[in-house]
Amino acid sequence: MCIYSSLSQSEIWLESPEDQNMDETQNTTAEARNEEDIFSILVATDIHMGYAEKDPIRSKDTFVTFEEILQVAQERNVDFLLLGGDLFHDSQPSTYCLYKCTELLKRYCLGDRPITMEYLSDPSLNFSFANTDSVNYEDPNLNVGIPVFSIHGNHDDPTGEQQISALNLISSAGLVNYFGKHTNFNSVEVEPILLKKGQTHLALYGLSHIKDERLGRMFLDKNVSFLTPQGDDWFNLMVIHQNRASRGVKSFIPDKSLPEMIDLVIWGHEHNCLIEPVQAGNNVFISQPGSSVATSLSQGESIPKHIGLLQIYKKEFNMTPIPLKTVRPFIYREILLRDFETLRQEYGENEVDSVANQALAIKEVEKVIEEMIQEAKDLGRKGNMLPLLRLHVGYKDEGQVFNAIRFGQKYQDKVANPKDVIKFRNHMRTSNTRTGDKEDKEFMAETVNLPNRVEDLVLQYFETNDVQLKCLNLRAFNESVMKCIDSNQPDAPIEVCNYLTKDAIKKLEEEAIEEENVEAFIIENNTKQHDVSLVDKILENKLGKKPVARRQEMEIDSGSDDDVSPVKGNDTTASTARGTRPARGPGSRGGRGSRGGRGSRARGKANPLF
Amino acid sequence: MCIYSSLSQSEIWLESPEDQNMDETQNTTAEARNEEDIFSILVATDIHMGYAEKDPIRSKDTFVTFEEILQVAQERNVDFLLLGGDLFHDSQPSTYCLYKCTELLKRYCLGDRPITMEYLSDPSLNFSFANTDSVNYEDPNLNVGIPVFSIHGNHDDPTGEQQISALNLISSAGLVNYFGKHTNFNSVEVEPILLKKGQTHLALYGLSHIKDERLGRMFLDKNVSFLTPQGDDWFNLMVIHQNRASRGVKSFIPDKSLPEMIDLVIWGHEHNCLIEPVQAGNNVFISQPGSSVATSLSQGESIPKHIGLLQIYKKEFNMTPIPLKTVRPFIYREILLRDFETLRQEYGENEVDSVANQALAIKEVEKVIEEMIQEAKDLGRKGNMLPLLRLHVGYKDEGQVFNAIRFGQKYQDKVANPKDVIKFRNHMRTSNTRTGDKEDKEFMAETVNLPNRVEDLVLQYFETNDVQLKCLNLRAFNESVMKCIDSNQPDAPIEVCNYLTKDAIKKLEEEAIEEENVEAFIIENNTKQHDVSLVDKILENKLGKKPVARRQEMEIDSGSDDDVSPVKGNDTTASTARGTRPARGPGSRGGRGSRGGRGSRARGKANPLF
Repeated sequence: MCIYSSLSQSEIWLESPEDQNMDETQNTTAEARNEEDIFSILVATDIHMGYAEKDPIRSKDTFVTFEEILQVAQERNVDFLLLGGDLFHDSQPSTYCLYKCTELLKRYCLGDRPITMEYLSDPSLNFSFANTDSVNYEDPNLNVGIPVFSIHGNHDDPTGEQQISALNLISSAGLVNYFGKHTNFNSVEVEPILLKKGQTHLALYGLSHIKDERLGRMFLDKNVSFLTPQGDDWFNLMVIHQNRASRGVKSFIPDKSLPEMIDLVIWGHEHNCLIEPVQAGNNVFISQPGSSVATSLSQGESIPKHIGLLQIYKKEFNMTPIPLKTVRPFIYREILLRDFETLRQEYGENEVDSVANQALAIKEVEKVIEEMIQEAKDLGRKGNMLPLLRLHVGYKDEGQVFNAIRFGQKYQDKVANPKDVIKFRNHMRTSNTRTGDKEDKEFMAETVNLPNRVEDLVLQYFETNDVQLKCLNLRAFNESVMKCIDSNQPDAPIEVCNYLTKDAIKKLEEEAIEEENVEAFIIENNTKQHDVSLVDKILENKLGKKPVARRQEMEIDSGSDDDVSPVKGNDTTASTARGTRPARGPGSRGGRGSRGGRGSRARGKANPLF
Repeated sequence: MCIYSSLSQSEIWLESPEDQNMDETQNTTAEARNEEDIFSILVATDIHMGYAEKDPIRSKDTFVTFEEILQVAQERNVDFLLLGGDLFHDSQPSTYCLYKCTELLKRYCLGDRPITMEYLSDPSLNFSFANTDSVNYEDPNLNVGIPVFSIHGNHDDPTGEQQISALNLISSAGLVNYFGKHTNFNSVEVEPILLKKGQTHLALYGLSHIKDERLGRMFLDKNVSFLTPQGDDWFNLMVIHQNRASRGVKSFIPDKSLPEMIDLVIWGHEHNCLIEPVQAGNNVFISQPGSSVATSLSQGESIPKHIGLLQIYKKEFNMTPIPLKTVRPFIYREILLRDFETLRQEYGENEVDSVANQALAIKEVEKVIEEMIQEAKDLGRKGNMLPLLRLHVGYKDEGQVFNAIRFGQKYQDKVANPKDVIKFRNHMRTSNTRTGDKEDKEFMAETVNLPNRVEDLVLQYFETNDVQLKCLNLRAFNESVMKCIDSNQPDAPIEVCNYLTKDAIKKLEEEAIEEENVEAFIIENNTKQHDVSLVDKILENKLGKKPVARRQEMEIDSGSDDDVSPVKGNDTTASTARGTRPARGPGSRGGRGSRGGRGSRARGKANPLF
């Protein structure tokens, strides 16, 4: 039985782990699979609409690529489009960005295309925070041709007093089905969207972005549970948006945290394309489609961008990577300049003085840049877009460093990012990266100790120098600054400061602290560790009386029943919910009767599955 | 024949001016008017969604009232909802505000309600900037129950590189029909939306907000033209969003600028409710519904808020004001404190020292505030909302002035705006406003010389003090600051500065100015008067190659034909467009055939009107 598919082997079908031990004869041959039983799903993540919107050259990139994705969805005639978060780059996107998104979704996703999958779960649970009472393709007032399902990422997460995501907006217009939003920060219960196409049953679990530290803690404390439908013939597909790799002082979700009951995880957030499904330690398959736009000029982003055509037949699946044609080419390279002494040996002492040293460095860099431009051209991308280039130039000799911005000006009409084509890095040892010796390998590791992000740097500063802020909780403030930067929530630091001030005053009053003890009390109060992130706690407080005990709303049969899929998961608890969908006879959606001519859409629900 | 209706006389029908000289027997009696021939239109303007969104008390006000308006539209079973601009308070509304708007529109305006009016004009002309190819209720993918038509105002006008309004966003979702957007700043040609209901023909002219100075100039230069359909049985309804009253140094559009061919104008932008139609000098009826929320605590805003039910039958119309029930009560008053000497005469010299003087003033103000609170309660508004109060307190004696913010704190739980309940005004003369003598009348006039707005103050400063900015064009910069404040376009001043810098450099290069003459040249260049607003010009330049010669796209019969409505207008030119709508046989919208069960909607277009 096959374990891995490769980018070229689109006809290889993988089986979910639990079936791999069964009799080989059960592996269905391609001939035996009926088109009407196969879910065909287009998978994409991290589209980052609105990224670089004000850049004179790249302003339209994300919109063009989102349109390409929607075109592929139409051409491939998929059952739905599944997005893994960060559809928007900002949590408060510009009006133009929202307009463009709405316009594209309406143009491509509404229409007369028949939808042949049945929605079987309870919309009030799946979309409880989206203010919709049905999956969008069952809305009697909309003619949806391609349903879109999306979780939110860290960029388009809910913000403000009302905890609204930009996804709420397009969801309220009926253009996407926004799911997987969880607002209880202590425990999470994931209710799957249940879909049926012919003989295939699909349970789609969505876990929108939660701060990694918090989610990691919840997994550890077994506070993440997955409701499972009755029966063992469900294909369990999960989509999440978290750190997968360790990054600086921030935490991440290790592959093995995932519950074993899941057959396949679509992993958002990570931008490098590792779309080919791989099996984690606990046998769960993971596919990481990667972003459809490079938002940083790092090596990982230079891996060609793909989306995936996921086909699911009963417990088997197949992922076919589809290269994106509209993505701006991005070429990444690293070189190490030959130093003064080496050049003198090569060209002779008289030829290389300090001026010539820099001139030779420029010449060397120019040569590589020209190669990179040619490499980008050779990709033959649509519309001959100007490429993004990033060349890391290692040097050992300060005299070789030249003005990178002025250097870039000569590539004004040849590259999309003339201002930051080159980054210099000080390299203390002599080597020639062109020859690829041992020291090249160390080049990459050089900056590991420098955190990537300003908040990590700040934390490091306070840790290293053994100083403390008096009145402000550093961690909370740092988090609010992150919210401000990452999620475009300009009010977050103010809100946090206000909260901390009020909180301190309240406590001072409650404890009736005398004036001379105020300072000590505040410092003590401030340095107390918080179990959960204070910033989120503040937001949580603001949310007020959200229905957190949602599980009680479900009709749960807690009695033992051997006929259900087994409860699994190391770090997780999987509970069995029966009748998650209230019985609803066919035709109970009265309004629908007024729309004829769409008989090809299977909407009857005569056979309750639960 | 009646000329005026009053708030209570909803059954009085007005006739358009040209018919008033006809035989009285032509005035249709109520009995003769057939329901199926009467257009029923709900009219509202200046809803300002998102205003005071961050105010702890008022945050939901605008959303609640917009919902009330949509509810009225449903209850009154209107043919459509007509909005006169400023649906949004910001040109870049918050995501929550956009979400709320979308959610409400989808909830109330989609549905199975039959629509019995025919759309007869060309959507590519009416909605040319809205990227839609049909009026929304003819979109085969949407089930629209209440069509909404809206122009933009000065608050939700198009912004940014792409010149996108928030209305474009909700229009792209198919929830409103956004019309009347004109991007050519030198001339405007208004193509009406043509609608037919039974025997009534309605031409709806939309003129979204244009800077008053510019539009005034265009009217003066006869560069505003109105295309008119063939036939003289059209009721010509116009909706605009401009200054109607003179405000400081800014210009306004006088009533008499309006073309005589218009029967009724719905005037947006002005917030005081003057919804009762009045006839202007040129016989055009004008109805000014006023805003549905008080965005300033001025006297005009304290007039009870209304929307209007406009009924149109052939050339007659009737406007029934509908009071809004969810609007927060707002009580406005002015008093003049009795001064030290008066009080001493009244209470005796020993009783009133400087401390008692202020205490008596506080007591007097408290008494009025309590009366105002009671007055608000007596309005019996829904939900017992805390009222808005504004008391202008005139004083002649500095010793009577007290801290207004501290004073307001005691009304924390009684009024919605405790921080600014009171405004003090220095009054140089002795009078007692309570007795209402002659000097009361002068109270209002006192601040006339003080402009309301910061940009007027700045202009005044430079005019009065005979100083000049050297490098910056003051007018342009002032305008960009206005855009920044009014339309939430934070980039406007930067864009304008960038443009002016580039422009200056370009001219310096072109004219090859020598170094010692640079300063003089810049000052000369700067002080040159611009015929049209520089800020708009900058935006215009950015727009690039928009199709401005749109009139050529229409099939215009320029030959003489007595059978067309006469060309009228003092300051305007009205041209006759025939066949503004390309011939389109019934059923040519193929996609529509797929939706049955909606036969009650008259969509056949078998009888071309042109």
